[in-house]
Amino acid sequence: MEFSKENFSEWYNEVVESAGLVDKRYPVKGMHIWRPYGWKIMMNIDNYFREIFTEHGHEEVNFPLLVPETEFKKEAEHIRGFEDEVFWVTHGGLDPLDVKMLLRPTSETAMYPMFSLWIRSHADLPLKIFQIVNIFRYETKQTRTFIRMREVHFFEAHTAHRTFEEAEAHIQEDIKIWKKIAKKLALPYRIVKKADWDKFPGAIYSLGVETVMPSGRTLQIATFHQYGQNFSKPYNIQYLNEDGEHEYVYQTTFGMSERLLGAVVGLHGDDRGLIIPPEIAPIQVVIVPIVTKKKQEVIKESKLIEQEVRDAQIRVHLDDRDNYTPGYKFYDWELRGVPLRLEIGPRDMDKRQVVLVRRDTREKLMVSRDEYIVKIKELLANIQDALYRRAEEEMSERIKNIDNIENVKEHNGVSAVPWCGSDDCGHAIEELTEKKIVGSPIELGEKKRCIICGKETEKIAFVAKPY
Amino acid sequence: MEFSKENFSEWYNEVVESAGLVDKRYPVKGMHIWRPYGWKIMMNIDNYFREIFTEHGHEEVNFPLLVPETEFKKEAEHIRGFEDEVFWVTHGGLDPLDVKMLLRPTSETAMYPMFSLWIRSHADLPLKIFQIVNIFRYETKQTRTFIRMREVHFFEAHTAHRTFEEAEAHIQEDIKIWKKIAKKLALPYRIVKKADWDKFPGAIYSLGVETVMPSGRTLQIATFHQYGQNFSKPYNIQYLNEDGEHEYVYQTTFGMSERLLGAVVGLHGDDRGLIIPPEIAPIQVVIVPIVTKKKQEVIKESKLIEQEVRDAQIRVHLDDRDNYTPGYKFYDWELRGVPLRLEIGPRDMDKRQVVLVRRDTREKLMVSRDEYIVKIKELLANIQDALYRRAEEEMSERIKNIDNIENVKEHNGVSAVPWCGSDDCGHAIEELTEKKIVGSPIELGEKKRCIICGKETEKIAFVAKPY
Repeated sequence: MEFSKENFSEWYNEVVESAGLVDKRYPVKGMHIWRPYGWKIMMNIDNYFREIFTEHGHEEVNFPLLVPETEFKKEAEHIRGFEDEVFWVTHGGLDPLDVKMLLRPTSETAMYPMFSLWIRSHADLPLKIFQIVNIFRYETKQTRTFIRMREVHFFEAHTAHRTFEEAEAHIQEDIKIWKKIAKKLALPYRIVKKADWDKFPGAIYSLGVETVMPSGRTLQIATFHQYGQNFSKPYNIQYLNEDGEHEYVYQTTFGMSERLLGAVVGLHGDDRGLIIPPEIAPIQVVIVPIVTKKKQEVIKESKLIEQEVRDAQIRVHLDDRDNYTPGYKFYDWELRGVPLRLEIGPRDMDKRQVVLVRRDTREKLMVSRDEYIVKIKELLANIQDALYRRAEEEMSERIKNIDNIENVKEHNGVSAVPWCGSDDCGHAIEELTEKKIVGSPIELGEKKRCIICGKETEKIAFVAKPY
Repeated sequence: MEFSKENFSEWYNEVVESAGLVDKRYPVKGMHIWRPYGWKIMMNIDNYFREIFTEHGHEEVNFPLLVPETEFKKEAEHIRGFEDEVFWVTHGGLDPLDVKMLLRPTSETAMYPMFSLWIRSHADLPLKIFQIVNIFRYETKQTRTFIRMREVHFFEAHTAHRTFEEAEAHIQEDIKIWKKIAKKLALPYRIVKKADWDKFPGAIYSLGVETVMPSGRTLQIATFHQYGQNFSKPYNIQYLNEDGEHEYVYQTTFGMSERLLGAVVGLHGDDRGLIIPPEIAPIQVVIVPIVTKKKQEVIKESKLIEQEVRDAQIRVHLDDRDNYTPGYKFYDWELRGVPLRLEIGPRDMDKRQVVLVRRDTREKLMVSRDEYIVKIKELLANIQDALYRRAEEEMSERIKNIDNIENVKEHNGVSAVPWCGSDDCGHAIEELTEKKIVGSPIELGEKKRCIICGKETEKIAFVAKPY
């Protein structure tokens, strides 16, 4: 395989398959097979979700996939937002169903009828649950691995609170959780508030976590939605407050998906293939024996090293395949993005050393067998940091302050433009630039003049081509 | 809640909800919500699957849910076996789909088109993969939690081999894996070969793992299928053998589902509720502080104990809820089936002891703080064994050698009857007893005469009412 990250789209489409993450040949558009290596990375991410959300007081549940049309249609905006993009189940066996059902595109309408049964009094609040499931959307646009799929591996947290303020405070806590996830995945990002016409169907407002891919296009990798009472009213989710009165709850959600893996692939890879951040890598260290001579001794030593590394709680794999050269193995594991390679040959054995090679910088170190475990841990931590810093730097370069429509059109990345915040000027920006407002950073900028109407404003719009 | 296991069906239906495993109020027949406690048990089982199948050289994949009708229809018997019981997706958004798709009832027809791409030469064999997904069946019979559902949490391993003999050997290995799983879940069982008219659609033969519930009805909790070349021919799964010739592969599958949890519930519970085998219990030890006096000291000590138990890698929960009496807490955790309770009160503190109470026998032990961790580990292992032994004993009593049709009809359990093995006599047994042949034990019995035709036979049929 020869590819260059210069042609990002081609590189991305190829690397997800050649590195063994997925097989795209499944005969349904927008649905792929997760191969073992890709699935392991996704499982590592899922397991971290479980750990961190449990720590923050959420409980994991699992709701059915199918939602009856009758439940789905209770919240008007929500149904309008989704009706063109859901799959419908209409038949069971050879018979038409009495009530047709849809494959969840997200689980509000499956969960909230149950919330109305579960929540009785203020003592039941806050309710904080999450689930990890696949969701389905009938995408008509071009599909792309991890980024725009018809079957999507999905994480969704749903909460219910006594007051709007508690729901607001919860979104702040979600942002803290997000920061930990971003660190684990070494992902740079900006948090924006979505424009009113672009918020989640049924939400009061939506926050998006956006990153910028090497193509210059933005990718939304997480969302936080404030629902207020927009769902609790149609789904009748009430609680008895301390004064003995019934009140509707206030709700939020936090959503993420396999797009996170898309961002990891896009932001960290290079011309040689993937670079998986050590924290989520299924294999953190791959051992390649250099068996030009003394084969048996080297293999024996490699197995000893494998055991020592494993005992140190490091995820390790010994590549003792017989029919491949070390050179081929280097190439193969670089493609798969294993963060650290350990080479051991007869000469290294004589010197009681191992050779460590970083995937990110390709730096090579000879390390004594007395301290190699400590050194591996140090290097894995360094690689994790370095990946984040490099990605953050590169991403920042793709975001530019621009206050002229022509330059926005030309800039291949995110233009941060002064915007008064009005719908009219917002739509004008989108029409004139042929791009989208992906949202507004929550922090205000300096006083400038709206790029359309010239009104003074501290508000900024991120204008870009989103995936 | 008051219930008695005497009325098994009622007891079962109630305990799965009151112990917090599922909520059955979801508005679609045969689909339930997994609540946090139930989902944790299922996840513990899933994670054990991952561990044991990885150990045995299988890799985990994840295939799409939707199967195009065109792929599904390639194996004639398979489609006949399933066409009445699949859900059909016919529309995307408001438009009818060009090719309608079904929700997988099992994944042969999703996977095997890919096998034909993945398998090229003998070096690619054996191929051993598994996945853990939900499957969907349009059940028209009465549904029952974990036992007969329309959405089913499912495990499926699929393998491909060079020869029939290798596939046969693999099924023997699967049986070894099953034995480890049965031990982990403390489940007694018998392995039978399914009657020819009852095998999996498309299989050469099927083995079923059957257990007998307290109701006397059998429950099939795992299956092994030998497909031979029945799927590899229609799906064109060929490999190049060492002589350079193309041959069709030989295939097997191994399936299990949430029925395993149904068996755990049914075989181990009692009038007080569930009893979860320690190996899969989300909470192995629950600490209940007895805070009649010296509340602060007791709570502080409880937290210390909690930490010590957790540090010993035991899954522990401290129930420090303020507004419940110890008596209520005992009742609550017994209902949920936590295998061991640890009580600590002011008097125990004075004596430097804790009180341990077994869930299965309700035996109470005072144990010194110097050795309580060792004792807990010992007790958990004892409980695991005792549960298995008790369940095996009770199950054996439900299986009786009977050679008279009237007695088969009357026996509330499994009748082991002499059967010549012919289809005619088999169907006659089923008609006359109004029961089913759930299969034949692989080991032959003594020479007896077929209950129908009187021919001499060593073959036995297990005749029962299956779930």
